[in-house]
Amino acid sequence: MRKYSRKKKEIAVEDYVSGIKSGDRTMLARAITLVESHTNRHFTVAQQVIEQLGSVKTNSIRIGITGVPGAGKSTFIDSFGTYLCELGYRVAVLAVDPSSEVSKGSILGDKTRMERLSNNPRAFIRPSPSSGTLGGVNRKTRETIFLCEAAGFDIILIETVGVGQGEFVVRSMVDFFLLLVLTGAGDELQTMKKGIMELPDLVVVNKADGDNVSKAKQAMREYNTILHFLRPYTEGWTTKAVTASALEETGLIEIYKEIEQFIHMTRNNGIFEKRRTEQLKEWFDSSLKDKLYAQFFYDEKMKESLLQYEKLIIDGEKTVGNSVNELISLFLNKKE
Amino acid sequence: MRKYSRKKKEIAVEDYVSGIKSGDRTMLARAITLVESHTNRHFTVAQQVIEQLGSVKTNSIRIGITGVPGAGKSTFIDSFGTYLCELGYRVAVLAVDPSSEVSKGSILGDKTRMERLSNNPRAFIRPSPSSGTLGGVNRKTRETIFLCEAAGFDIILIETVGVGQGEFVVRSMVDFFLLLVLTGAGDELQTMKKGIMELPDLVVVNKADGDNVSKAKQAMREYNTILHFLRPYTEGWTTKAVTASALEETGLIEIYKEIEQFIHMTRNNGIFEKRRTEQLKEWFDSSLKDKLYAQFFYDEKMKESLLQYEKLIIDGEKTVGNSVNELISLFLNKKE
Repeated sequence: MRKYSRKKKEIAVEDYVSGIKSGDRTMLARAITLVESHTNRHFTVAQQVIEQLGSVKTNSIRIGITGVPGAGKSTFIDSFGTYLCELGYRVAVLAVDPSSEVSKGSILGDKTRMERLSNNPRAFIRPSPSSGTLGGVNRKTRETIFLCEAAGFDIILIETVGVGQGEFVVRSMVDFFLLLVLTGAGDELQTMKKGIMELPDLVVVNKADGDNVSKAKQAMREYNTILHFLRPYTEGWTTKAVTASALEETGLIEIYKEIEQFIHMTRNNGIFEKRRTEQLKEWFDSSLKDKLYAQFFYDEKMKESLLQYEKLIIDGEKTVGNSVNELISLFLNKKE
Repeated sequence: MRKYSRKKKEIAVEDYVSGIKSGDRTMLARAITLVESHTNRHFTVAQQVIEQLGSVKTNSIRIGITGVPGAGKSTFIDSFGTYLCELGYRVAVLAVDPSSEVSKGSILGDKTRMERLSNNPRAFIRPSPSSGTLGGVNRKTRETIFLCEAAGFDIILIETVGVGQGEFVVRSMVDFFLLLVLTGAGDELQTMKKGIMELPDLVVVNKADGDNVSKAKQAMREYNTILHFLRPYTEGWTTKAVTASALEETGLIEIYKEIEQFIHMTRNNGIFEKRRTEQLKEWFDSSLKDKLYAQFFYDEKMKESLLQYEKLIIDGEKTVGNSVNELISLFLNKKE
C-alpha cells in the first residue's frame, strides 16, 4: 500500500487489522474515524479493514440507552460502565445522534462528562462526531460496533438522545434497550415522543437519591402501571421499572441482574440470535446502499456529467426525469 | 402501453399527462399515488409522466407551514386556504411527515379537519400517505409539488408537524415559511426544537380571538423581541410576528400582504430564483438516488443474488464487506 505524506502518516490496512485484533485502542479509534469519514479513499480503506477482520464470533452484549435531555445519561453511563468494568467486562461506549447534522448538537461531545469511565483502562469511549453524519449513520454505527467487538469489547453501550428518530435507530441495533427517566412520570411522558414507552426492556428511574428517593419510588410505581398496559417489546419478557442513583451508585446491581436474566432468556428462546441476524441484514442493506451511492457520486466522470446535467436542468433544457434516466444509463454502461 | 386487468384499470401515461394538463383532479390524485408508490412499475410510470409533462413554467408560490401539535394548523390552513381561493388562486395543500413510518402517525389524515377548503372547487387537498414514506419522502414531495403546479395550482401550501426533521425538510422545498404558534411564547419555545425560530419568514400567533386577544398580542410582542435577536433566514427580510384567528378569520389579509411583499422583494433581489434553482438541484439529487436504488433493489436477478448473499452472511460464510463488493461488481458488470 502506498503511503502519502500527509499530516498524519497513513496506516496500512494490515496494521489496522492486527492493531484492532490485539485490542490497540488508538488503532480502533483511528479505524472508526475512517468509518465515519466522508471521503471515498477512507471509505475504501475502512471497508478493507472490515473485510480482513472477517466474521468475529464474540459473546458481546449490545445495550442501547436513551432518555430525555437532563435524565442523567452521561452520569448513569459513567457509573454503570465503571461497575461493569469492575465485574471484569471490557466496555465500549458509543453515541448515535441522527439529528446532529441539522441541530449541530453533539452528544458525548465532552469526554469529561464521563470522567471515571474515560480513565478506566477497560473502557473505550467514542463521542459522536461533531460534524455531519447524516449520510450513512446506520452503516457507520453498525461498523463501529463491529470494530469494537473485534477489538475485544464485551459490552457495547450505545447512547442516544431522546429526540428525532435516535431511539428507533438504536433499538434496531441492540440486544437490550434501557430507558432512563426522572421522577414525575406524567409530566415527563408529555415531552417524550409517542411510542417511546413501547421500546425499552427496562425503565430506570434515575436520581433516586437524597430527598428524591420517595418521589423516585412513586415514579417507579407509576411507570410500572403504564408498562402493565403495554405489550412488551421483547416477547416473553416483562419490561419493568426500577430505581437507581448514578450518584450514590445504588440500583446498578439490580440493573445488571435484569440484563443478565434477559440475555439468558433470549438466548434460550432464540430471540437473541434472531435479533442478531436482523442486525446483520440491516448492516448489509445499509452498506450496499452506501457503496452503491459511493460508486456513483464519487466517480470522477459521473461527477462531471452530473454538473453538466445540473446546468441543463437549471437552464430549462432538460427535465429532471430525463436527466436521471440518461445519467443512470451512462453509469451502468460505462466501462470499469 | 399494455393494459392489465387489475382491480383498477391502468391509465396510460399520455392520459395522465393530458389529464393533469387540463387540471383534472382525479388524474392528479392518481398520479400522486404513483409517485408515492413503492412498486417499481408505478415508479416507472410516474417518471414517464413527469418526463412528458416537461418543464412547467408557472408563477406558483410554495409556502411551508409548521407548528407544534395543537397550534391549529388544520384550522388555519382551512381558513387561509379558503381566503386565497376567494382571491382567485387555485390552492393545493400537501403534507410532509417524515416521522410517519415510525410513529404510524399521519397528518392531514382526516380531510374533514379542513371542511370548507375540501369542498372548495379551487382547492386540492392531499393527505400524507398513511403507510410508510420513509424512503424517498424528499423526491416524492418534490414530484407532488411539480404535479400540482403542472395541474395549474398557483399556491402550494405544505404542512409539516413540528417534530422530527419535518421543518428542515420543508424549509428546503418552499419559497416562504410560516411558523404557527400559540400564546405563552416562553413555555412553548421549550417544547420546540432548537433552531426552529431561525427558519420562518413569518411567525403567526394563532387563536387571537375572544378572551385570548390580549394574551396573543403579548405573545406577539415576545416573539418579536426574540426575532429581533436572530438573523432572519431570508437575507434582507425582517421576520416578524403577527396575530391571527383562524376561527374569526382575522389577520389573514395581513399574512397575505406579508407574503406578497416577500415574494416581490425576493423576486427583485434574485433570492426567489436562487431558491428555486436550489430546489431543482435537490429534486435532481434525490431522484438520482432513488432511481439508482430502484435499479439495484428492484432488479429480479439482483434480488435473487441479494438473498443468496444474505444467507451466506448469516451462516458466517461471507463477511458484509465482501458480499457488498461482490454484489456491486455483479450489478455493474451485468448486461442490460
